[in-house]
Amino acid sequence: MDYRRTYVRDLFDMPPGTATSAYGWVKTRRDSKGISFVQISDGSCFKDFQVIVNEGVLSSDDLKLLTTGACVRFDGKIVESPAAGQAVEMQAEAVEVFGAADPQTYPLQKKGATMEYLREIAHLRARGNTFGAVFRVRNRAAFAIHKFFQTRGFHYVHTPIITASDAEGAGAMFQVTTAVETVEKAVEGGTEHQAAYRIRNANPKEDFFGKPSYLTVSGQLEAETLAMGMTNVYTFGPTFRAENSSTSRHAAEFWMVEPEMAFCDLEGDMNLAEEFLKEVVADLLDQCGDDLSFFNQRIEKELLETLQHVVSSPFERLTYTEAVKLLETSGESFEFPVHWGADLQSEHERWLTETKVGRPVILTDYPKEIKAFYMRANEDGKTVRAMDVLAPRIGEIMGGSQREERLDVLESRITEMGLPLEPYWWYLDLRRFGTAPHAGFGLGFERLLMYVTGMKNIRDVIPYHRTPGHAEF
Amino acid sequence: MDYRRTYVRDLFDMPPGTATSAYGWVKTRRDSKGISFVQISDGSCFKDFQVIVNEGVLSSDDLKLLTTGACVRFDGKIVESPAAGQAVEMQAEAVEVFGAADPQTYPLQKKGATMEYLREIAHLRARGNTFGAVFRVRNRAAFAIHKFFQTRGFHYVHTPIITASDAEGAGAMFQVTTAVETVEKAVEGGTEHQAAYRIRNANPKEDFFGKPSYLTVSGQLEAETLAMGMTNVYTFGPTFRAENSSTSRHAAEFWMVEPEMAFCDLEGDMNLAEEFLKEVVADLLDQCGDDLSFFNQRIEKELLETLQHVVSSPFERLTYTEAVKLLETSGESFEFPVHWGADLQSEHERWLTETKVGRPVILTDYPKEIKAFYMRANEDGKTVRAMDVLAPRIGEIMGGSQREERLDVLESRITEMGLPLEPYWWYLDLRRFGTAPHAGFGLGFERLLMYVTGMKNIRDVIPYHRTPGHAEF
Repeated sequence: MDYRRTYVRDLFDMPPGTATSAYGWVKTRRDSKGISFVQISDGSCFKDFQVIVNEGVLSSDDLKLLTTGACVRFDGKIVESPAAGQAVEMQAEAVEVFGAADPQTYPLQKKGATMEYLREIAHLRARGNTFGAVFRVRNRAAFAIHKFFQTRGFHYVHTPIITASDAEGAGAMFQVTTAVETVEKAVEGGTEHQAAYRIRNANPKEDFFGKPSYLTVSGQLEAETLAMGMTNVYTFGPTFRAENSSTSRHAAEFWMVEPEMAFCDLEGDMNLAEEFLKEVVADLLDQCGDDLSFFNQRIEKELLETLQHVVSSPFERLTYTEAVKLLETSGESFEFPVHWGADLQSEHERWLTETKVGRPVILTDYPKEIKAFYMRANEDGKTVRAMDVLAPRIGEIMGGSQREERLDVLESRITEMGLPLEPYWWYLDLRRFGTAPHAGFGLGFERLLMYVTGMKNIRDVIPYHRTPGHAEF
Repeated sequence: MDYRRTYVRDLFDMPPGTATSAYGWVKTRRDSKGISFVQISDGSCFKDFQVIVNEGVLSSDDLKLLTTGACVRFDGKIVESPAAGQAVEMQAEAVEVFGAADPQTYPLQKKGATMEYLREIAHLRARGNTFGAVFRVRNRAAFAIHKFFQTRGFHYVHTPIITASDAEGAGAMFQVTTAVETVEKAVEGGTEHQAAYRIRNANPKEDFFGKPSYLTVSGQLEAETLAMGMTNVYTFGPTFRAENSSTSRHAAEFWMVEPEMAFCDLEGDMNLAEEFLKEVVADLLDQCGDDLSFFNQRIEKELLETLQHVVSSPFERLTYTEAVKLLETSGESFEFPVHWGADLQSEHERWLTETKVGRPVILTDYPKEIKAFYMRANEDGKTVRAMDVLAPRIGEIMGGSQREERLDVLESRITEMGLPLEPYWWYLDLRRFGTAPHAGFGLGFERLLMYVTGMKNIRDVIPYHRTPGHAEF
């Protein structure tokens, strides 16, 4: 059995008369007047493929096994289909049942299972319509992202996952250790006095990396080191947040895309972000049409319209200060009041992009107090060259900035934020030796997937979600 | 300043007379008879680009700044080059120095810096010849891998990085926790008695995921769940080993590629592995010619020859049992004696592939005692459907197997290995509901890179290595 496969998606293109095999899992079987209509799927496309089993072709034992979830190979001939919605189907001549699925116990039976239930059987849910579609879109989006950057001469770089520095102070971190066992063993035996003694002596210097180490919250700072030698680079890897909050938009483990460009200012950064989002969405509209139509029909009514709109509309560009003025004079009654200096809330972002502008909006030049230390200071002494890309229906989808490339300004900012300079020695070296204007942005991959599929919960756009209390499978 | 860039690699193709700009970092400057010859690089290709600065064109202040490591933009005209090895060069008309690099302190000066020294300045080493080449090859290899799978209908899947199960028992794991702080705080204050009391009460159930959690050693088991619904899938992500050994071939954090195919047996698995290695290496020979030539010249004398050989030779396929016979009758005196049942050592693998066969070899059907529980049992009761791919000069480069798809056999194997069944409930479900023959393999991405570049230490094929005692940058 070779890995080379006639996928179900290829069967639809075969001329009637072709003898072939169809591999997959049974979605449904319907029996009518001695004929069985079996729908199978192999995850290669949204559509199921119909196989016709005439009476007497299969043994009744085999026929009985053709229930939802069973894994099979049908051998037969492609024939024209009288049914609507498909040009061809297969007339079965033989079947091999690789594995049955007892209808009494198979967990993925019932139609209309809730998303919550499907998370409990996440090891099977890719066999269903919704999650097959989600994971096909996830696959294609990842490839579209690589293609986008590769055709523009960007280098894909792998920044470290384990890090000893709380890089950008972006959030709570998970500690990575081999010393827990040591601590646990120390507590286990002996008197309390002895245990405490041993724990005091469980020196962090004896931990694997010789100092406290964490899971990365962003690859940006390391990506900058590579851009300052290779010009245009991007990361695409997992990042982590140990924030103990359960929302539909936050996960403890998620994938980030972070381009970083030397010889680029905020203008160039915005151009890249706009081109990026348009090209990836256009690629998905082109390559995953059936999957997106399904989401449009079943998950989010205006999905296709908003996606087409993103591809065809120029993004509006506004400064934070302009946006605050628009919000203040909007006449809307927001839950959170707006004033210059405050972080914009989701309601403000959505009003701007959906109601006011009706297109994606890029906001720039935020107050320095609400942005990270590495963003380039403007001459006004109050704002920094930050940008957030806001999209209708979801709000913020990307965030980036021109980086502070001036050594003295950067050192002042780090000190001003109450951070020590020493851990940033290598980051500061980039400004000490051959510095250059540079910029970049970050995109949460799962946020993008929620946007393009309309799925409402981040737990449902990644195969196995990690959230407080959940590390199943 | 836009991100769109005329890269140095594009300058070489410009017709003489073109007015353009060249961005990059100065590699060297040589002054001769009033003319300065400046070599710059932007990481887009192996070759440096030569810029000619005639006396009086730049101010003497600017000229003084053009030292190794300085970051610049030259504006000028492309002209034919009288020098050997390059068709064109630039006649400078103006320069902007973005950032100088003081020759007294810039750390990447000296020729012939050791690999060890360059690891200490890993944030700068991508600017040099060797690491520019390594990271260009790394980028291209990653993309070639995605292209290989995408053109064959495989779906890229992201399996979890944080896991609560020691999946395949493949090695020592890092623990991921938010409780260390709790423990540390508990130890900090108060009497020893109080500290011990608080530590005893630092319940692991109060840790972030509600149970002990670890960094994954392999995405295979989760990839199987996705293959059993989407047919052909692959992972490409970071994996971890907490093994406290410092060798040139082991890192605590490395990237793995793991394809998994439904409806595929060991034969198909071998076909895929052979095609995969050939296509990725052929792509690199095609796309990274200058970089590989450099490695061939400076790092590993027979590199190009062995790579071309891999592309053009059919891989030999032998069973483990046949291989042991060949080794036993080889007349060689190995350091480790060979007998049926023993794991093959590197010296044995290299003798087989280099001396005996002279081509890559795939060994199959290993004794079950030395392989993992999930590999499909052969009828002989002694061996399993495992495979290792061995390549000349490096030995094992990929390992895989057909998976045990029979529920009863798999349960027996797990129990036989002394493992509990309960944590594998979802893995066993795959065999309970719609099981199918399936197979896959794993490739350590850094091992592949060591193979195709000839670099001798795994620390030098990844931007920032994680090894015992080392988590710098």
